[in-house]
Amino acid sequence: MSKSHFIPGLHAVEQVLANSKVEIKKIFTEYQTANSRVEILIAKAKQLGINIQTVNRARLEQISGESRHQGIIAEIKRNSVLDEAGLRTLVEQRLTESPQVSLLLLFLDGVQDPHNLGACLRTAQAAGVDAVVVPRHGAAGLGPTVSKVAAGAAETLPFVPVANLSRVLTWLSDYSVLVIGTSNAVEQSLFDCDLSGPVAIVMGSEHSGLRKGIVSCCDKLVSLPMSGEIDSLNISVAAGICLYEVGRQRRL
Amino acid sequence: MSKSHFIPGLHAVEQVLANSKVEIKKIFTEYQTANSRVEILIAKAKQLGINIQTVNRARLEQISGESRHQGIIAEIKRNSVLDEAGLRTLVEQRLTESPQVSLLLLFLDGVQDPHNLGACLRTAQAAGVDAVVVPRHGAAGLGPTVSKVAAGAAETLPFVPVANLSRVLTWLSDYSVLVIGTSNAVEQSLFDCDLSGPVAIVMGSEHSGLRKGIVSCCDKLVSLPMSGEIDSLNISVAAGICLYEVGRQRRL
Repeated sequence: MSKSHFIPGLHAVEQVLANSKVEIKKIFTEYQTANSRVEILIAKAKQLGINIQTVNRARLEQISGESRHQGIIAEIKRNSVLDEAGLRTLVEQRLTESPQVSLLLLFLDGVQDPHNLGACLRTAQAAGVDAVVVPRHGAAGLGPTVSKVAAGAAETLPFVPVANLSRVLTWLSDYSVLVIGTSNAVEQSLFDCDLSGPVAIVMGSEHSGLRKGIVSCCDKLVSLPMSGEIDSLNISVAAGICLYEVGRQRRL
Repeated sequence: MSKSHFIPGLHAVEQVLANSKVEIKKIFTEYQTANSRVEILIAKAKQLGINIQTVNRARLEQISGESRHQGIIAEIKRNSVLDEAGLRTLVEQRLTESPQVSLLLLFLDGVQDPHNLGACLRTAQAAGVDAVVVPRHGAAGLGPTVSKVAAGAAETLPFVPVANLSRVLTWLSDYSVLVIGTSNAVEQSLFDCDLSGPVAIVMGSEHSGLRKGIVSCCDKLVSLPMSGEIDSLNISVAAGICLYEVGRQRRL
């Protein structure tokens, strides 16, 4: 897909400018800016031959929606969204063409907050995840806030909204991908689990955890040990711990 | 210290109500509420004999400041803030009285965003950190937003604002605490480091990392492996990965 997509905010625009895989169509900035970080970005974008369009604040706010734009927005061509068939192709290619590094997928079962989704994407990309799979309905989708928080990952990491998460988890088993669900209700620790082969990590929504139908698709359920009176972690923190444990085991 | 302190928001008030270590002085709520989660909380608070005060929305907004209150705010007695001398006492007690579980401290060198500080506190408490140490000036301090995000940890986890982080790191060496700084500029991976003894993990601010003077106080610098074009993680995610790796090594 090549739908236009807007990335507001200094850090996010810096990230997409530095990322050779992102195609920037245009940069929107204010007529007047006293911010030297914005000026440096504009100079860099000009060097790269990117079209700069100066607009007023109202227009910037209109484009960025709820997210803070800090005087700069990049319009990019998104090519990271896949459908279920595209995911299947990706999985098959990865398993056959580079089997020496095991497949790693992240399933997010209904994350509601775009900040959390953005933080999960950033974390997933840093951890070497191959694709992030989410339900098409009833969950946060991509948008300016997600892009801003994701620091470039929303534009480059394969993102797969699907009609039915359970169906995808079921056909993944045919490829011998181990499906690991995270849950506070079980005793087995993440750290006692062998994650060195092809793995899909499945995390529930912020408030209600994994849905029953999803739990029944998991080969194993694991929890993160908790001290004190805290009963859960922020979902992007929990995702980071799980995904980096996968990476640690694979490097051993 | 026993200064009053306000915790806005449904999840945060649920957490402090469930936390036997937090002393709740009063709960503020709106005259009219159609939210069943608020009603359940009020009923539970009444059972516990907590004073409920109904106020109007303007008053709730005044108390909660910038943070969203969702119709409910708890006023609690905070007793988790320590000074440098208090930290020294805590360290000495932990090293002598329960040496079987190694000391674990988290130093945050100038985290600016209260959401990030709150997320770090929540993560630190879940990971079994003994105290979080921050600079007294030039960094986010405790407040309603931190409390809301920290889900109870801001009220119970020892929090130590100090005049000089370097001085504290220096005297920690006298107690044989290993000081581990995190940095993107080094090759050594966190996962190759022995973290089983008493450890202080030191993390830099969101934008500029560790200050030079702090780096020189570290026994070792380590980085988190990064894939793709992501050059850093959100600080609470990075803290979670580091602190849970400490926990994993200690459980082995």
